[in-house]
Parts: sequence; structure tokens; C-alpha cells
Amino acid sequence: MPSCASNAPRSGCPSTITAPDLSQLICLTKVQGMELAVPFLSCQRRAAWGARKATHLCCPSMKYFLILLSCTIVVFLASMRWQRPAESQIKEEISEARSDLKLLSPEKYKSLFIYSGIWLAPKNQCECAKVDHVHVYEMEDYIDKKDLASVKERRQKEFEHYQKRYPSMTQDIVIAKPNVPLSYPIQGVEVMPLHTIMIPGLGLHGVTEEKYQVILRASLGTLNTLADVSDDVVRGRGKKELLILTSDVELLNFILEHVTYTSVVYQLSAVDMMSFESRDHVAQFPVIIRQPSLPKLFDPGADRKISSLVTITTKTFLRYHKLQLLIKSIRQYYPDIKIIVADDSEVPEKIIEENVEHYIMPFGKGWFAGRNLAISQVTTKYYLWVDDDYLFTENTKIEKLLDVLERTNLDMVGGSVNGNTYSFQLLYEQGDDSGCLHLRYGSFHKLEGFPNCVVTSGVVNFYLAHTDKSRHVGYDPLLQRVAHSEFFMDGLGILLVGSCSDVSIGHQAHNPASEPNLTKVEDQYKRFRTNTQAQVQFKLTLHYFKNQLKCYSTR
Amino acid sequence: MPSCASNAPRSGCPSTITAPDLSQLICLTKVQGMELAVPFLSCQRRAAWGARKATHLCCPSMKYFLILLSCTIVVFLASMRWQRPAESQIKEEISEARSDLKLLSPEKYKSLFIYSGIWLAPKNQCECAKVDHVHVYEMEDYIDKKDLASVKERRQKEFEHYQKRYPSMTQDIVIAKPNVPLSYPIQGVEVMPLHTIMIPGLGLHGVTEEKYQVILRASLGTLNTLADVSDDVVRGRGKKELLILTSDVELLNFILEHVTYTSVVYQLSAVDMMSFESRDHVAQFPVIIRQPSLPKLFDPGADRKISSLVTITTKTFLRYHKLQLLIKSIRQYYPDIKIIVADDSEVPEKIIEENVEHYIMPFGKGWFAGRNLAISQVTTKYYLWVDDDYLFTENTKIEKLLDVLERTNLDMVGGSVNGNTYSFQLLYEQGDDSGCLHLRYGSFHKLEGFPNCVVTSGVVNFYLAHTDKSRHVGYDPLLQRVAHSEFFMDGLGILLVGSCSDVSIGHQAHNPASEPNLTKVEDQYKRFRTNTQAQVQFKLTLHYFKNQLKCYSTR
Repeated sequence: MPSCASNAPRSGCPSTITAPDLSQLICLTKVQGMELAVPFLSCQRRAAWGARKATHLCCPSMKYFLILLSCTIVVFLASMRWQRPAESQIKEEISEARSDLKLLSPEKYKSLFIYSGIWLAPKNQCECAKVDHVHVYEMEDYIDKKDLASVKERRQKEFEHYQKRYPSMTQDIVIAKPNVPLSYPIQGVEVMPLHTIMIPGLGLHGVTEEKYQVILRASLGTLNTLADVSDDVVRGRGKKELLILTSDVELLNFILEHVTYTSVVYQLSAVDMMSFESRDHVAQFPVIIRQPSLPKLFDPGADRKISSLVTITTKTFLRYHKLQLLIKSIRQYYPDIKIIVADDSEVPEKIIEENVEHYIMPFGKGWFAGRNLAISQVTTKYYLWVDDDYLFTENTKIEKLLDVLERTNLDMVGGSVNGNTYSFQLLYEQGDDSGCLHLRYGSFHKLEGFPNCVVTSGVVNFYLAHTDKSRHVGYDPLLQRVAHSEFFMDGLGILLVGSCSDVSIGHQAHNPASEPNLTKVEDQYKRFRTNTQAQVQFKLTLHYFKNQLKCYSTR
Repeated sequence: MPSCASNAPRSGCPSTITAPDLSQLICLTKVQGMELAVPFLSCQRRAAWGARKATHLCCPSMKYFLILLSCTIVVFLASMRWQRPAESQIKEEISEARSDLKLLSPEKYKSLFIYSGIWLAPKNQCECAKVDHVHVYEMEDYIDKKDLASVKERRQKEFEHYQKRYPSMTQDIVIAKPNVPLSYPIQGVEVMPLHTIMIPGLGLHGVTEEKYQVILRASLGTLNTLADVSDDVVRGRGKKELLILTSDVELLNFILEHVTYTSVVYQLSAVDMMSFESRDHVAQFPVIIRQPSLPKLFDPGADRKISSLVTITTKTFLRYHKLQLLIKSIRQYYPDIKIIVADDSEVPEKIIEENVEHYIMPFGKGWFAGRNLAISQVTTKYYLWVDDDYLFTENTKIEKLLDVLERTNLDMVGGSVNGNTYSFQLLYEQGDDSGCLHLRYGSFHKLEGFPNCVVTSGVVNFYLAHTDKSRHVGYDPLLQRVAHSEFFMDGLGILLVGSCSDVSIGHQAHNPASEPNLTKVEDQYKRFRTNTQAQVQFKLTLHYFKNQLKCYSTR
């Protein structure tokens, strides 16, 4: 039976990922959708009953069997009542027999599915194609062969636990059937956990019956109606199944208009696919149980001073001479702004500067541990990340970056370092059991309203960012030495990132210092800073597990 | 015109919040829903065109006007084509004239809407009712009158910016109209930004026309079809409006089956309400543009040692004697586990203990700043929060708490301190421009599968928690002195919290220490620790702005 995990593309379809190839795309889309062309609507109802346990209605082989069985039983009974014109012309099998119904040739459609040179249509399995100028890392190559099976098993187990806590709110596709006399809320209604809401829009229209029978079913909550009617008419008040029996269609619709749903389990985020059945038809709609969060706002103060909106953060290690030059250059332009310094030097020195907060860490804890520490202490809406060997210049106008963030929905905006902007896209493909990540230099498109700015996935190490979203993403303290794009990988889907070319910061020269003891310091620094083969292996092994990746390609 | 912000209950309804009062609930639910009973379906189509610009379709007065105008025009034209039985019986106005259609009396329905003694049905404005045993804080009382107007204006501006970056993905309710010959994906389809998908399930069924005309409209993406047909049949390929004109219904459905949607703006999370129209009918469905995130998994290692899964974190201030006793007690039971200590003492002392990581902060930075620092350094899947004056005992079995988190979707589980568990619920009501928060002692219900545990909103200061979600919530460094429930307020909707009574930790006695200099230390400590009136005012003013609250009630 095909996999019913809603995020992953469906199995049961050809597994070729030869691009361009529409057959897999079409198969995957069809398996996701429900069967449309069912000539006998009562037949569909029975199939829906049978498939109801598999709430997703995503397992076509079971559905086919039930439809077939039900159809055989029902065909005879329904043939008396059949009044609609044959719907057979809408059946796909007949359409496929028509030779004039054809799809576009690859040259015509492939531009729809290729982005940055990668074939990105939905697939069962992704890959990192080895093409010119692209460097591919197959992550399993970096793991000890004797450990690989055990690592894979652990990773799968951790992923299943993760999915329980980060449930996918996107359901399997449910198609609204045509010509159904039921009305209901299409995208569903939202209810807070353990609360009650009225479900709007339920009704049965344009059907005449002697005795109407309507059943509503839920699984994560109980049902009721605010209509004052006897137990003969409504049964199951306060239960998961509500049955309405009446010959009075106005009364029926009055009861339906006032149906209530009460969530019974405290959950932060869940979907209850309810079913709504009359004698001959059935529809489904979701009730979304969601606990809303409190907003988290920062007060900029009545005067909106830069120092009330922005904190400067940096990490330092051994290079106090460079740090002092940085601080001096900041003070030239921003005398009041708070500076937070995370420091994991071996022999910490005192930093006695006005409005500079100095945090001392265990020796060599690392680059991202220090970054995570620094932003954990910010109390303003934004923070400006700088490296300890930068230099503020007259072009380092924080106000310009601030303007971009205040007037858009970006979470972060990068500038340029010594005149160089640097931005890259991250393209992520999910697969059945592991994903593929592609890094490509460049940006997605311009930022509307800001001609010097673009939207992208990652930027240089000089940026203004929202404190809330950055802390949500976090700088992973496992990354002790060289790391940069890893923060943006963790930020994918959470941080909306831009890059502007008109705000720049200077970089202190890499020249050997004039004094011999400073040279010694810089040599020691370099030893920690080199991206060794061991470093590369460590990071690939980490991302294999942590981000459930199969391969990583960069250009 | 009523407010169209989808999260807040609708205005345009009676603003009384006298509980129990169903009239407002019913009005709010109806305003949210679309009009159902429109006798002329072509009439509805024209109203939908007019209302299309207000994608939400949530402004009934505009809709009423358009429906009225269109109906006047259309009535004459349609009267020739009218074939359905009068649908007037489903119109509510007539239902209301029937005296036998009545709602339940308050005594019968109020239990549906009361939780923990609070009337929680949807309202325009919430309130913190002054009743016995409940302490109410009206936040505006704590703000300087001369500043209040300016603060409110700033808060509203910050909230509007916040909403741009945290868009509500729940749309206004759209009701599936009955007896419509269109099929379409009810809850919509998901597409990654700048990617293309095929939209499943579009079709027109059971209608016979000489020439079929179908229009598809999008706003955040462009449309196309993979069907190979000429420009006479399909116009607008690659644009936001796709027009299909053909007399061949099989061809029409073949084209519709293969319609593609391409997202054109890089966004993390957005909803494009598409419209799907035939000559006489219109339907809507959402296309959800979403950038998925990479999973973030932690490797427990092949042997799943406690020290690979859990880090102990604490904050200390002045009380090194107590901290040393804590560490000693931990080592008695967990010799290998890493301990992280955040320290903002005035004169930091060296802590030389195996596997204890000591972080030194500026003096008096504060309680939550220290907590946020400590968890920013954790590299394991979980951390165990302890205060620096606790004592591990033989009942402090981290493995039991670990078992609860590993086997459920909880994000945090609290234990008991000196035999006392403490848990509280947080009930949050959103209002038009500010919310109400109610804290009530107790829990929601038992935790399934764990008879000693319950589900709640907040617990004591002794808990095992997932590192990822805790860092997402964060301990707000603005809270320098006394604070506890504020973390759980920030965690509402993000952290799923449990409390178990069978794991406990000891508490070092509050007795004055035997040595005089320790007494001096403890006196100094107490001065920072008292919840003064100034503290209370500071926190209420903070939460008024930060969480956009109007009032806070506790019991």
C-alpha cells in the first residue's frame, strides 16, 4: 500500500527520476488526489465508509477494492433510481483512449520544473546530479561503514519522534465532489484545544426525502447542537457521532446550522477530518485544533533611538587587538549602542568599555556556541552581527538596514563586507527517507521597493536580523570551528533573508601584525580557523543525521 | 466595514460579552461564513467577482450590496432558465419566522462554553471577570497616563509588523456551495516557493453546454496546463488568469486535470485563494505556498547513554556554597553528565569541577538572561533545569522523565520539588486589539499511558525539556529578577507541557547558614530576589506591550 505520510511524495509510482519525465509527476499527483469519476454516488459513500478508518483516503488499492465491491451490490439497487446522464464520459480510462488528447513535449514544459538548473518536480527520491561546476557530497561516503546501518536506524527513529512533535498540518488532498447537495466549510474551522465552536455552513440543499438522515462524525472532539430538539431527532449529543433524523428539512438545516464541536484532548496543533453524510452523499472537512501563541512585540520607545532598537553582537577569540579596533570604530558612529561580546579565549582579558557587555566562556567552546550565547542576551528587537575583525566606516549605516527590516517582512538583511556582497540560494528536496540540499550562488529575485536589495537564502557575515526568529533558528553549538552556511540551512523555512549592496562594513587587513606577540596570537588563531578534512567530515556526518540528508551539492 | 483580520473575532456583531449569550456567538459564526442561500447561482458568481478583490470574502456589507445589485440585474435574465425548486425554504429569514425552531436555554448549553469557570466562546472583546478567589490585573492601570496613548499606538504598529512576519495561515471560512458541478481540491494544494505543481482534481461534471468556458485565477503565481492544445483553446499560459474555451467536455477536463501552478514570489508561508469559474458557477480553493524546513535531529549515540541525551543546566548568583552542594549531589548519581552553569555573581569564583562548564556574565544581568545563556550552550537533545539550591536524591531519576519525553509528543515534563508538584493552566483569549490571559492552578487532563502524569501549561522549576523547542521559546533576558510563569506564557502554543509526580528533587533548606559570611551572602541574595511592587509594575508594563494583553487574571 502506498505510503500515507503527507509530506513525502507518494510511492506506488514509477521510481525513475530521469528528468524531464512527466509520468512520475502525473502519477504522484493522481495518487495524492481522490478518485473523481465514480458514477454511482451511493457507491462512493460506501467506499468512503470503508476508507474512513484510513482518514487520509490516500490508499487507492483498498479504495478500488471497496468501490468495486460496493458497486457490484449497489448497481442493481441504484439502477431504478438512476436519473443522471451517464457520467462515463468523464472517466479517465476513456479519455486515455482518445489519441488527440496529448501532453506537451519535454522541451515545452521543462522550463516549468527546472530551477537553477535542478529538476525540481515532485519525486519519490531526490538526487544530487553530478554536472559541470557542481560539487556533490554523498553523505554516506563520510560515515564509517561498520556504523552506517546503526546510524540509519537511529536516524529513522529520531525522525519519527520529531514528526510526532512537529506534525504536518497539510493533509492528503481531498477533492470536493461535484454536484453534491451538501454545504460545509471547505478549508475547515479552527478551534482552540478543549474549547467549543459552532461549525458554520453545514446544510443539505435541494434534496427531497421522506425521512432525512444525516450523520456527523469526529475523532478528536465531541459534537452537539444548540438547537432545542428532542432525543428522537438528535442522538449522540456530546459524543463523537451525531445522528439527525427528521422529515422536516427546515428543522434539519436549523439543527445543522447550530452544530457545535468540542475539542477533548489538549493538543497544540492537530487536524480532525470530520465526515458529513446524508443518505446518498458524503463530504469531509477538517476541524483544525490549534493553540494560538501570544504575540511577542518589542517596544522601540517613544523616540525610536537606534540604541533602543539594535544591539551589536560579536564573538571574539584571542584577537583582542582587533576587537578593540572594532569597538573604537563603532563608537565613532554609534556612541550609545550596546555591544555584546562572547569570548572563549584561553586567557580572557578584561574589557572595560562603556556599554560593552563581556561574556566569558570555557576555552575554545567554539564559534557557533559563542554566536548563540551572544544573541541569547539581546533585549532589543534587532541585533547586528559583526565579526571581531571588522571596521565600521561612514558607509556602515545601520539605519538603512533598519529601514529595510521595518518596512518589509524580511527577518534578516545582509550588507557587504569590504564592498563584497555574497548571497546564495538553498534548494531543498524532501525524499521518502532523506532529503537533498543544493546551494547555489545568487539570489531569487529583487526585493520589492528596494532596488539595491534582493531576496535570497543566505548572506555574508554582516547582517541586521530580528532577534526572535534568529533565536528560534539558533546557532548550533556543535559547530565549533569553521561554519557559515549551516546557520542558513537551519534557518530554511523560518528566516526570510535579503541582501542589500548599499550598506558596507570594512575588514581589518590580514597583514601580519607589526608586533611579534601579536603575530604569535594570529598564528594560534589560524590553527583553530582552518577548515581541515577532519572538519569537513565532522560536518557532513553531523548533517547526515541532524538534517536527515542524503547528499549536498554546491556551485 | 467589519474587520477582516482572520484571527480576531468579527466586528459588526453585538459587542456585549455577557455570558452566557449565544447571540454574539451565532452572529460571529455567521459573519465568518459565506452566504449560503443564494437562489440564483449566476448571481452568486457575480457577487464573487465583485468580492474577489477582498480575497477573504469577509465583508458582508459589501457583499450584500453586490448581491443585491447583481440579483436585480440577473433576476429577469435568469427567470427563463430557472429550473430548480424554490430554495427559499432554506433561507434563514423564513426559518426564523417559524416559532418551533428554537435554541437551547442557557442552562443547557453553557457547559459547552465554560472552562475553568471562564466563559470562553468567541467574542469581539475579552475580559478578566472579577469573581471570588480570582486576582485581576488590568494592565493599563500600571502605565503612566501621560504615556498611555503613545504606548498604545506604538504597540499597534509593532503588532502590524509582527503580523506581516507571522502571517495567519487560517483563512476566513469559505463554504462549499451545494450542487455545484465543479470538482476541486477542498483544502488546497501545497507548493514550494518558486516551484511548480500540478493541481489535482479540477473538473466540470454533469453540465451540457454548446461552448464551455472556464476561467482560473491566481494572484501569487502563474498558471499553465501540460495539455498540448492550441492558443484558441487555452489562453493565458504563464499568466495569472487561464481561460479555457472548448465545446469538447472531455478535452476540457483533460486540460483541467493537467493545470499547473507556479509560485512567483519567494515567500515562506502564504495562501493564494484561487478561483475556478464555469459560466454559471464559481468555486474557490487555496494554494498554500510553503517553504519546508530541514528536520533537526539529535543523535543519541549507539549506546543511548544519559550523558549523550541530557545536559544539566542551572543559573547561579552569589551562592557558591549551595551550588557546590548541588554539584556534589548530582555526581553521586550521575558521574558523567555535563553540567552547564551560568553565573552573574559580582565577584565570580572559579569552578574547577570535571565536566562542569562555567559561563561568566556581567554582574546582575539577571535570572532569565542566565537561563537563556545556559540553554544556548546545550548540545544534547534534552536539558534538565535545576535551581542552584536543589539537591539530587535517590528519587531524582532522570531516566523516568526521559522515558516520558521519548515516548510522547510532550516538549517538557516537570517533576516535583521536595514532594510538591505544581502545575497551572494558561487560558488565552484573543480580542480585536488586545488579549486576556487567565492562569488557573491545575492541569488539563491525565497524560495517556502515564498514570502519574498530567498535561498542563506550566510546571515547577524542575523539568526535563527538549532543547529545540525551549530555545525557540527562549527565556526573555528582560526578566532580570523574579519570574517563572512568564516562560510558560511565552511557550503557549509552542511547548506541550506535562507534569509527573513520581520524580522528585530535594531543596536545600532556607535556614540561615552557620557561618557569618554566608549569612551576609544570603542577605545580599534576598535583596535581589524579592518581588517588589516595582518588579510587579515592570512586568505588567512589559506584558502589556510585549504580549499585547489587556488584563491578566490568576487563581
